[in-house]
Amino acid sequence: MTTTQPPTLRWEGGADGTLVLLDQTRLPGEAVELRCRTVEEVWQAIQRLAVRGAPAIGVAAAYGVVLAVRAGATNHTGLPRLHHRAEGAEANWRDDAFAACDYLATSRPTAVNLFWALERMRRAAQESAAGAVEQLKERLLAEARAIHEEDRQMCAAIGRHGADLLAALPAGAGVLTHCNAGALATGGDGTALAVIFELVRRGKRLHVWVDETRPLLQGARLTAWELSQRGIDCTLICDSMAAQVMRQGRVQAVITGADRIAANGDSANKIGTYGVAVLAKAHGVPFHIAAPTSTFDLSLADGAAIPIEERGRDEIVRLGDSRLAPPDVAVYNPAFDVTPAELIRAIVTERGVVSPVTAEAVRAATGQATG
Amino acid sequence: MTTTQPPTLRWEGGADGTLVLLDQTRLPGEAVELRCRTVEEVWQAIQRLAVRGAPAIGVAAAYGVVLAVRAGATNHTGLPRLHHRAEGAEANWRDDAFAACDYLATSRPTAVNLFWALERMRRAAQESAAGAVEQLKERLLAEARAIHEEDRQMCAAIGRHGADLLAALPAGAGVLTHCNAGALATGGDGTALAVIFELVRRGKRLHVWVDETRPLLQGARLTAWELSQRGIDCTLICDSMAAQVMRQGRVQAVITGADRIAANGDSANKIGTYGVAVLAKAHGVPFHIAAPTSTFDLSLADGAAIPIEERGRDEIVRLGDSRLAPPDVAVYNPAFDVTPAELIRAIVTERGVVSPVTAEAVRAATGQATG
Repeated sequence: MTTTQPPTLRWEGGADGTLVLLDQTRLPGEAVELRCRTVEEVWQAIQRLAVRGAPAIGVAAAYGVVLAVRAGATNHTGLPRLHHRAEGAEANWRDDAFAACDYLATSRPTAVNLFWALERMRRAAQESAAGAVEQLKERLLAEARAIHEEDRQMCAAIGRHGADLLAALPAGAGVLTHCNAGALATGGDGTALAVIFELVRRGKRLHVWVDETRPLLQGARLTAWELSQRGIDCTLICDSMAAQVMRQGRVQAVITGADRIAANGDSANKIGTYGVAVLAKAHGVPFHIAAPTSTFDLSLADGAAIPIEERGRDEIVRLGDSRLAPPDVAVYNPAFDVTPAELIRAIVTERGVVSPVTAEAVRAATGQATG
Repeated sequence: MTTTQPPTLRWEGGADGTLVLLDQTRLPGEAVELRCRTVEEVWQAIQRLAVRGAPAIGVAAAYGVVLAVRAGATNHTGLPRLHHRAEGAEANWRDDAFAACDYLATSRPTAVNLFWALERMRRAAQESAAGAVEQLKERLLAEARAIHEEDRQMCAAIGRHGADLLAALPAGAGVLTHCNAGALATGGDGTALAVIFELVRRGKRLHVWVDETRPLLQGARLTAWELSQRGIDCTLICDSMAAQVMRQGRVQAVITGADRIAANGDSANKIGTYGVAVLAKAHGVPFHIAAPTSTFDLSLADGAAIPIEERGRDEIVRLGDSRLAPPDVAVYNPAFDVTPAELIRAIVTERGVVSPVTAEAVRAATGQATG
């Protein structure tokens, strides 16, 4: 099971380098690289979902902080500095990094990995000298690279733990997934898809049911593409068909990623995940989440406190050049929903499996510091 | 609550007239009329969903039979006659009508109203003289017009019975619907939407949640358009958002149409309806079907015997000029699913309300002949 899939994101060059993203808005039609040379370009890329998936957003934002520290009064695109520096004041390059962290945190509200990665970058900046720009940049790049590399290892570990958990699935079992929690969503091989990849690598024959995942079709555009690239048997369905496929007995397990998990295990993920979890329960199909421990937000007691991003109407009423609905119709477009812990059989993390999903088990699994 | 919506279908002229359809594939962008002068054009219009909705398909097919009876060896588009006539044999115009009934029955397999309407046209032909073409055509047109007019009255009666049933909904209640069961789906004001229209006419303030209904987006394109035309408060959502909206407590009732209902009340309707019914049950929201008694197929003991149409992959992987998925991905595209009777609080028919939904209650409600 090899893939020729280009990397989701990579850093090119040294401390003055460039963040190169695979532009996911162009997939599966074209594999186009997007070169980000400024923090603003990274913010835009995150906001318009050129890079998406909670872990990948965290890695991209970390590299974005490196880009923000530039000598000169403007960055090289001519945009003003993020951080206002009083005329004549001594350069405090760390303030550029701090301002970049604040700025990047506004790109998307739900995935907590973004804030987690930015917090690590902030700490790295704090540990550097204020006036030594080259040292600061080297330190920031090293931290971003560490976050990226840890993400790769985290994906591999999630794959192993998840494959152990699902080892008893019968040959030819159907596994349904929603949205994209694959290599495109992470710095490595993915979260939910890493589990599927590892099962296949171990010789398990699986059939993956791919929810297309309206409105932005990450299932159709990204997950189906990743599975095709690796030659894994799959069938694309509309989100509204998941219930029918479950009723036909064709799904033995569901596994998805997550964008933020509260202290009690309530998990925010792509809109539609909650409905899939309810349907899975009604059909006796176990529902699993795969996510790194950086996705847990222990400051939130339960899912009710997770902020849910609402996105624009055009995602629903337009597609390419096609208008899909009357021009003035009211639209509700939440990007995420929250699946309550009681619907989740297990949460697979890089440290092991949380099951049953309780506040105690979450506390135990996330007990040690991640750094 | 008035509407300027053009008629879904109308007959223009006398026995040699034309069936004029509102081409629903062009909505909501353009309200374009499609003029059918041959039975083949009607078959095509049904097959490609220019006219859709179980009752409207029945009415269109009935008019299609009228178009099939034409003097001359070919119909006026130059296509060969449907019915092979031995050279020199005396004209048996009824055979043209019978052949048209067989032919139109192949256009779509699930909605039983199609077969019900064609059976009525077949009986009308049988009652006519074999050689008198003008009398036969007048008789067929009269039958088609009767089916159309009964459909109008049926919609009004469903509206009244449904509004009585849901009269206790609180002001501002949310009602969720899937696909389109409005004026565009019938010869009258609709089935599920007729109930909503009647409630609004009686002064009830409602908010309608419209599932966009992938893959062909009848909710976004047609239901949202119909509601907008009548000034009824509504919000368009992706199918995957219905669970979230229910969880937020914003839906007090679900009502949809049906394409075929088995003797025990199991109801086939647009793909996704079953999932909505499961979600409604999980959230304590009552789920209703609105359909004329011509939608019941008492020859089928339960829903397992209802044939489910599978449609082409392009409906899922393409939209306009946009390619939504990798070119070679496998696709499953069932056009319908079956909601079991136990998930249905009530079936609203033109004769009254079937509730609880049991084989006995269905038998009682459909006991008398419809004609």
